Amino acid sequence: MPGNSFGSAFRVTTFGESHGPAVGVIVDGCPPRLPVTVEEIQRELDRRRPGQSAITTQRREADAVEILSGVHDGVTLGTPIAMMVRNTDQRSGDYDEMRTKFRPSHADYTYQAKYGVRAWQGGGRASARETVGRVAAGVLARKALAAAGAVEIVAWVQRVQDVETDVDPLTVTGAAVDANIARCPDPAAAEKMIARIEQARKAGDSLGGVVEAVARGVPPGLGEPVFDKLDAELARAMLSLPAAKGFEIGSGFGGTFLTGSQHNDPFYDGGNRVRTRSNRSGGVQGGISNGEAITLRVAFKPTATILREQETVDQNGRDTTIKGRGRHDPCVLPRAVPIVEAMFALVLADHFLRQRGQCG
Amino acid sequence: MPGNSFGSAFRVTTFGESHGPAVGVIVDGCPPRLPVTVEEIQRELDRRRPGQSAITTQRREADAVEILSGVHDGVTLGTPIAMMVRNTDQRSGDYDEMRTKFRPSHADYTYQAKYGVRAWQGGGRASARETVGRVAAGVLARKALAAAGAVEIVAWVQRVQDVETDVDPLTVTGAAVDANIARCPDPAAAEKMIARIEQARKAGDSLGGVVEAVARGVPPGLGEPVFDKLDAELARAMLSLPAAKGFEIGSGFGGTFLTGSQHNDPFYDGGNRVRTRSNRSGGVQGGISNGEAITLRVAFKPTATILREQETVDQNGRDTTIKGRGRHDPCVLPRAVPIVEAMFALVLADHFLRQRGQCG
Amino acid sequence: MPGNSFGSAFRVTTFGESHGPAVGVIVDGCPPRLPVTVEEIQRELDRRRPGQSAITTQRREADAVEILSGVHDGVTLGTPIAMMVRNTDQRSGDYDEMRTKFRPSHADYTYQAKYGVRAWQGGGRASARETVGRVAAGVLARKALAAAGAVEIVAWVQRVQDVETDVDPLTVTGAAVDANIARCPDPAAAEKMIARIEQARKAGDSLGGVVEAVARGVPPGLGEPVFDKLDAELARAMLSLPAAKGFEIGSGFGGTFLTGSQHNDPFYDGGNRVRTRSNRSGGVQGGISNGEAITLRVAFKPTATILREQETVDQNGRDTTIKGRGRHDPCVLPRAVPIVEAMFALVLADHFLRQRGQCG
Amino acid sequence: MPGNSFGSAFRVTTFGESHGPAVGVIVDGCPPRLPVTVEEIQRELDRRRPGQSAITTQRREADAVEILSGVHDGVTLGTPIAMMVRNTDQRSGDYDEMRTKFRPSHADYTYQAKYGVRAWQGGGRASARETVGRVAAGVLARKALAAAGAVEIVAWVQRVQDVETDVDPLTVTGAAVDANIARCPDPAAAEKMIARIEQARKAGDSLGGVVEAVARGVPPGLGEPVFDKLDAELARAMLSLPAAKGFEIGSGFGGTFLTGSQHNDPFYDGGNRVRTRSNRSGGVQGGISNGEAITLRVAFKPTATILREQETVDQNGRDTTIKGRGRHDPCVLPRAVPIVEAMFALVLADHFLRQRGQCG
Repeated sequence: MPGNSFGSAFRVTTFGESHGPAVGVIVDGCPPRLPVTVEEIQRELDRRRPGQSAITTQRREADAVEILSGVHDGVTLGTPIAMMVRNTDQRSGDYDEMRTKFRPSHADYTYQAKYGVRAWQGGGRASARETVGRVAAGVLARKALAAAGAVEIVAWVQRVQDVETDVDPLTVTGAAVDANIARCPDPAAAEKMIARIEQARKAGDSLGGVVEAVARGVPPGLGEPVFDKLDAELARAMLSLPAAKGFEIGSGFGGTFLTGSQHNDPFYDGGNRVRTRSNRSGGVQGGISNGEAITLRVAFKPTATILREQETVDQNGRDTTIKGRGRHDPCVLPRAVPIVEAMFALVLADHFLRQRGQCG
Repeated sequence: MPGNSFGSAFRVTTFGESHGPAVGVIVDGCPPRLPVTVEEIQRELDRRRPGQSAITTQRREADAVEILSGVHDGVTLGTPIAMMVRNTDQRSGDYDEMRTKFRPSHADYTYQAKYGVRAWQGGGRASARETVGRVAAGVLARKALAAAGAVEIVAWVQRVQDVETDVDPLTVTGAAVDANIARCPDPAAAEKMIARIEQARKAGDSLGGVVEAVARGVPPGLGEPVFDKLDAELARAMLSLPAAKGFEIGSGFGGTFLTGSQHNDPFYDGGNRVRTRSNRSGGVQGGISNGEAITLRVAFKPTATILREQETVDQNGRDTTIKGRGRHDPCVLPRAVPIVEAMFALVLADHFLRQRGQCG
Repeated sequence: MPGNSFGSAFRVTTFGESHGPAVGVIVDGCPPRLPVTVEEIQRELDRRRPGQSAITTQRREADAVEILSGVHDGVTLGTPIAMMVRNTDQRSGDYDEMRTKFRPSHADYTYQAKYGVRAWQGGGRASARETVGRVAAGVLARKALAAAGAVEIVAWVQRVQDVETDVDPLTVTGAAVDANIARCPDPAAAEKMIARIEQARKAGDSLGGVVEAVARGVPPGLGEPVFDKLDAELARAMLSLPAAKGFEIGSGFGGTFLTGSQHNDPFYDGGNRVRTRSNRSGGVQGGISNGEAITLRVAFKPTATILREQETVDQNGRDTTIKGRGRHDPCVLPRAVPIVEAMFALVLADHFLRQRGQCG
Repeated sequence: MPGNSFGSAFRVTTFGESHGPAVGVIVDGCPPRLPVTVEEIQRELDRRRPGQSAITTQRREADAVEILSGVHDGVTLGTPIAMMVRNTDQRSGDYDEMRTKFRPSHADYTYQAKYGVRAWQGGGRASARETVGRVAAGVLARKALAAAGAVEIVAWVQRVQDVETDVDPLTVTGAAVDANIARCPDPAAAEKMIARIEQARKAGDSLGGVVEAVARGVPPGLGEPVFDKLDAELARAMLSLPAAKGFEIGSGFGGTFLTGSQHNDPFYDGGNRVRTRSNRSGGVQGGISNGEAITLRVAFKPTATILREQETVDQNGRDTTIKGRGRHDPCVLPRAVPIVEAMFALVLADHFLRQRGQCG
């Protein structure tokens, strides 16, 4: 079974190579009668767009989205919603060396090993351009979630290399996140992150870090045990992002240093609903949401593209060297923020529809 | 869509509640003509069994497996293989308080919130007994993998609370892991872990930690981009385990402190195949295996069951207290080892069959 | 992807070979809090049971069902419901010739060709015993459907060879169907059918025919275009039954002799809902139920097992002959009735849950 | 789970409404390195195109296909292949009455009932324009099948109303089928069919009939019991087509008049492989191909659109009348031929890849 679809009730299938004619997505299973405009989708794509700031790649693409189906008179029809973005700024010349050499820690070699062929320009299918479809779909996912209540999803850059911040997931806002180009809602930390990224760019090097995210207002009961647990699906969603190497929910790796008596979240009568005093569970217990804020973190490795000479092999397996050229993101974290939010929304929308189907 | 199945080509569906008549599994899609005996499956279940050592729960169940279908004259038929273990040692008396109260950081509350009903004894479906089916299926997964070459999967306890070890994933053996009841192949660390677990048990408390795992000999090309990436599927597999809170592949969270020039894995001509000098990618690039060892780590929180009085609510949402009683695992790590191995095998077997289907 | 599962929201996976230890099913996705007893399931299995009447196979199996999971205190839990029937009356001696020879128009040869191995006794996985699990699951499907309104599903034998009847699908009752062993609600036709079947049995031969079925009270809106149309899913469900060779919905093949002006179903204001004056659509338009009775017919070929010498080949592909022996159904139609009803219920329950998930 | 995808290993997802911006398809799971040109796909779309002959609708659309992804340097990449056709000839004016009235035996009412909204022009998603994507995907499916051997798929019009022919499925060629606009390889019958269709058109009426199809050269072993039997999947594939009301494999409904001794297909030693003397099984036994020609028939009802006044209701459920106007197909059969072939190819390709995955 192929792997380009995500979700079972709210089902997303993306397509497209970095330097092919277009990238896009089909959203199947979106509830009908949701109002949607092309501008809303474009707005979110603009948050993901290359060339949006001094610390992202300078590849300039308008990434103008077109809705091809599934929307009529401004509302969703319940039928598949296809959306497409044409690829325009394709300087294939920058990539000539990639035709015959594998870039270290990219997917060039593994695609060749798997398929015996690859779209060698710019990473082809493995390019982060593929996430255009995810972000577009995420806008619809948030709309589908509206029927579940006032769910708010916010992601932000929590750490770049060792420059980190500590943000309260219960109060952080999207506006604060988008207030600076680092997408870190702590202005002081953001400034340091930007400086660090600039420094890496000048050195022809790259940085990684951590994106943190929260969903507030998620009703209890979402998540399908035992394999499609909400946290398991979130882990898959996040690890499916380019450059992701780790995932934590709630207390994560750090929580393993505590004892059970320190780690457990006591329940209490919260008036209209059961609450927990602490939230080390990260809003998910036994794979099912408990009504508390769902908190997670995703580790992104430093961008594989660097402007330095590196040891590698060519397509015949012979030793050679390669030097990255042209435009690249010295740090993917700021642009990863809207993508993490989109994946978060996709998982929640899917599980909301699944829950409504089984349990009414 | 319900959530009790895993895998698409090698497809596993588990069933069973902790205190119902039985737990078990159907494996659908297992290749035909693989030799298999009930003893092989039993052997692996015995590694997961409660009561196997002084540091595991004293619930005593033989966990005797029966093969109900799909095997004929000692070989697999290609048809569904159903396997079942009867539940026998069910001291429901231990659980009376659970009928009306939710245990903190267990799934009692979320199952009730989701389904409006729950099998309240011993966690029901959310009990770790569910993993019996996974471990049984894992034995078949390893057999299915044989056609992919000599794949070796080994997991071990890397850390209990802050007692940790550093084991070479390229050389660690299953025999070394099973040489002590901590399932840590470093005897000195194992001794400390056992002492620490005993101490927690006496205090009526519990501990968490990290299981590390490796798969050696995996051929390049496994993993289906873009959503069913090998690392994304491994993340989902591991986060679907009870008490799992985090996942890392390769360099994981730690790798985010490096720069790209430090982190990238240079390729070199390895003679009969392309190799990498370092393996921060953890054997997966762009979601596809590259032939290097696949390395991962899973964080398990401290067991939620502790023998102390805790604040909680009852089924009517009113404040009360609960005190754990009876038998429990003060630390799930040692018993998690065969389960992590089973999930690892399930993911690899599934992707091996998928790869063979699409690419021949 | 393996093929032993059916449905996506209400998902059924069957297992078991004719002469293995057991046959059974896992139902995943069944809504929680539905009251269910083992007696209700047994009652339906008894309608499918061999040896139930003079015109069915004399293989005597009690087919006693056991519920292994998913039911607690008499209600469904929302978790997987596993059910199992032990195989008991296994006279393998009757089948010795089948070890090395392929029975004509059975699945012996194709299983061998596909898997390179087969459970040669009694058809193994291809035996109609596999439908035990379907019938058990069908009981739960009908319960799940209750939330959709008062849906009634009735099937009956419409024709045996050329002995046929014309029954009004709007009024036929299950009681009338079960009033005779032919399961034909027209007593005069039933008598002729029974005589015809007896005659075939004496001649060591077998007969086929047509089962007709209706679902009344299905709400409008069930069915998922464009591939999972309600009629397409019903067609798949019915053709997945042993010996099925054809399927019709509504006017079927006969309707192709009409013109559009004769065939179209005019709409009219039915008071509380839109109705159609005729029902050549068979209750489904554009793949979606329209609230009228859903009517369908399934063609079953004459049983392949006959007590006559037939030309065939052995496992080495060399010409030989084979003669059926022992017990068999000279006509599967009467026992097919509860199975067709079960499949009908499975399709409707699945689509009801899917509709509720997407459209609320 | 939504319903716009088909196949599990070779997976097709279509999108698009009749009068939206575009219709199209994503093919996921297509094997890599298959040579493909846009012209090959266009050629097949031209066989499905409206306005291609005097007896089809006069809606004039070039149906020019664009490949958006998944093909590079003339070969498939193994990644999703997205293809799109812009809708151009949209005389919405013809459809004004449809905005508020439901056309009898169309899907207008059921879409409204299901989704609470509909794209009312020209049937929206329920329009046969949706099959553009299926036909485009079918071209790739045939290419994927090449690795299974020399598989030939041919469909033809076997009957229009009561004008029928009897064609030998073992020798019929695609060239003979396309030799006339009726797509009936029997020139005498074709002439009568054309006359009959012309007559219906002049009367403002419409006709139905039967398409027959064969696949020759299919290797034994394709088909996944017990639910995804090859014939069950073919039934679903064909019933998912607009206007399809019935399906038969092999002897179908007619075979039910025979006895078992007349109906069974004796095996014999065919030299290099096992053969059957007759082929009433239609090339499928126990849901698995046996190497003989796979033969099937699909019943298509008379086109629902007729140029006559008909009784119906409006969107408020009140009685009214409607009269079809503008362009329509008086008989869908000739244009259904390439679509039936495409669905046949999709099923076979999917099962070939599934078989290769499980059984190697």
